[in-house]
Amino acid sequence: MGLVVQKFGGTSVKDAERIKNVAKIVTDTYAKGNNVVVVVSAQGDTTDDLIEKAAEINPNPSKREMDVLLSTGEQISISLLAMAIEKLGYPVVSLTGWQAGFMTNSNYSNARIRKIESERLHIELDKKNIVIVAGFQGINRYDDITTLGRGGSDTSAVALAATLHADICQIYTDVDGVYTADPRIVPNAVKLDEISYDEMLELASLGAQVLHNRSVEMAKKYNVKLEVLSSYENKPGTEVKEVIKVEKMLIKGVAKDDDVARVAIVGLPDRPGVAFQVFSQLAKAKINVDIILQSIGRDGKKDISITVPTSQKDSAIECLNECKDLLNAEKIELDDNVSKVSIVGAGMQSNPGVAAKMFEALFEADINIKMISTSEIKISVLIDKDKSKKAISVIHDAFEF
Amino acid sequence: MGLVVQKFGGTSVKDAERIKNVAKIVTDTYAKGNNVVVVVSAQGDTTDDLIEKAAEINPNPSKREMDVLLSTGEQISISLLAMAIEKLGYPVVSLTGWQAGFMTNSNYSNARIRKIESERLHIELDKKNIVIVAGFQGINRYDDITTLGRGGSDTSAVALAATLHADICQIYTDVDGVYTADPRIVPNAVKLDEISYDEMLELASLGAQVLHNRSVEMAKKYNVKLEVLSSYENKPGTEVKEVIKVEKMLIKGVAKDDDVARVAIVGLPDRPGVAFQVFSQLAKAKINVDIILQSIGRDGKKDISITVPTSQKDSAIECLNECKDLLNAEKIELDDNVSKVSIVGAGMQSNPGVAAKMFEALFEADINIKMISTSEIKISVLIDKDKSKKAISVIHDAFEF
Repeated sequence: MGLVVQKFGGTSVKDAERIKNVAKIVTDTYAKGNNVVVVVSAQGDTTDDLIEKAAEINPNPSKREMDVLLSTGEQISISLLAMAIEKLGYPVVSLTGWQAGFMTNSNYSNARIRKIESERLHIELDKKNIVIVAGFQGINRYDDITTLGRGGSDTSAVALAATLHADICQIYTDVDGVYTADPRIVPNAVKLDEISYDEMLELASLGAQVLHNRSVEMAKKYNVKLEVLSSYENKPGTEVKEVIKVEKMLIKGVAKDDDVARVAIVGLPDRPGVAFQVFSQLAKAKINVDIILQSIGRDGKKDISITVPTSQKDSAIECLNECKDLLNAEKIELDDNVSKVSIVGAGMQSNPGVAAKMFEALFEADINIKMISTSEIKISVLIDKDKSKKAISVIHDAFEF
Repeated sequence: MGLVVQKFGGTSVKDAERIKNVAKIVTDTYAKGNNVVVVVSAQGDTTDDLIEKAAEINPNPSKREMDVLLSTGEQISISLLAMAIEKLGYPVVSLTGWQAGFMTNSNYSNARIRKIESERLHIELDKKNIVIVAGFQGINRYDDITTLGRGGSDTSAVALAATLHADICQIYTDVDGVYTADPRIVPNAVKLDEISYDEMLELASLGAQVLHNRSVEMAKKYNVKLEVLSSYENKPGTEVKEVIKVEKMLIKGVAKDDDVARVAIVGLPDRPGVAFQVFSQLAKAKINVDIILQSIGRDGKKDISITVPTSQKDSAIECLNECKDLLNAEKIELDDNVSKVSIVGAGMQSNPGVAAKMFEALFEADINIKMISTSEIKISVLIDKDKSKKAISVIHDAFEF
């Protein structure tokens, strides 16, 4: 008995059958005495279809008009889901982003939520309506439609849960929870009952595509309890929350990211200010740098290695080559035959054996480590791309999940 | 140099090519120094596709949710047209119904426009933007989305033209104007350069599907000059306005309506209050009655004949049979093998020869007249359905357009 926010993604509402299934889940939750607010994404391929329509007319449309176009996708979903719930005989109302009070900044196609003006939501909840809200969208101060960019609907759901002080925010998806590794690669991967926000953040940024980081960050900030679960099976998923039980399991998961390239700036002068110069140039060129490693200086020279998304490797190389002389660097090197493989788990730092076990597993599988990076709750290594699946398997086996 | 409102229907924006064509028409008008406000409908079959999607989920959805769903059709059109205009390098902004200030009553799926709050429109026009507005939609006092029902986009355009005091409201369609008869039936039908509001109203209600009556009524009320023209050909269409030049042509057009059935209530007592009883019963059953004819009483009995749309003939018969005893009627008769053929033209009443010429043409073609009804500017006859095309032809020939 409380307030539950449920979010359903594009595959969960892709056709009439799936929508009826969602209606069943929602009304079951309502019938148990809960207030229910539901966030839905656009149906399956709708967004792609709309993008294609636009491309036929203008390959480079304004982001403002693109947002007007794309926001229709969720508007179609909310009305169809509301109709499915009407069919089951429950009181329901659908609200677009602006009707639900989503106020954003004006950064079209990638807007941030400023606040949710929740008056209308409270009116509908007071009427005991099931409230269906269009995810991914809002309006700016000019009353123009904005969209939230990648992971937008998850973020809409968490923002609603935070604003309405929901008891839980359930993210329904096509997997039934967060696993210790990608079950398509590691068949004996184990589903986690719970995971902390920080661990989830690391896993998400390391390639586990269950939840978008932006929504997990917001959940952590406002202490919203998340649950990741399947819209196909009626069983508990994985809870994401702040305080978790002490468990025997130290490592929460193994993940890989193939969308990575290593760039090395070789032979930089070993004096203060060099790193600053390198990264201010990269920032100017809007390069997203992930791992940063700096070698220990020797003979007055040092190297800086970074990883970037593969889509930005060319711009990174170009940018660094342009300022090679300014930086007094000897050369710029690219290695795009790499993958990042990581393990994640709180308390890892105080257990030195963890890193050793990971490296041993890789050694026994004859996998060379090209770069190492660690944080409080993760260890990442860069290895040859064609060995990344093998690496995940052997590491997962080593930790006996 | 003025303010032009242009409206484009579903066929005019059905695909990328047609949208680019509309962008050309709009920007040509703008390039001549005009402010331009454009109203668009949903693309070709979009509305039907959305209705089908809904039907798969709920054969009887609420009208509120249906309006949320259907309003996405125009929202897609406005953004695509805006993108096409951006491509041509002109300043443009798209506005949904609520952004453009369309305030309606709460009669979902068939709402009436209460007013247009034009502040945003003026802001955009002051910025010299071409403004693209979603037709057919608005919001009610609760901020819920409504749609305007049949002819909605034409009505949106006329309402905008009235509110903004536009110099002209151009309704672009797939025909190039208003004809003296349907050119598909009467090959020598003539395009009219101009026609009065009242004549247009009669023609529209008699089956000429160029303009919806509701929009013409509003244009007449606010004295908005209309022009009906083709989005396929760049040439003048037909102007609809109050004061028109004296012309040799008395008759403006011949039209037929096959969607009609005649119902006769035979042998009613000839005393006061009988007609009231009949029509209050029909009104209760929500029957739309078109022509009404009452015979002269004889032997204390009279007959009342009405015409109704064919879709309502069964309900009409059922309703009248149920209250036959109450009405003291002898019997109820149905004839659904009829068409209504009409001629329209101002000043007809003061030219008795007009009716004679029409009836003579029908007589010579051996077409029997089953019922006659006249107004100041039209004469309608009911004839056998299979002779309606022939009737139109011979009448059209008789008047030598």
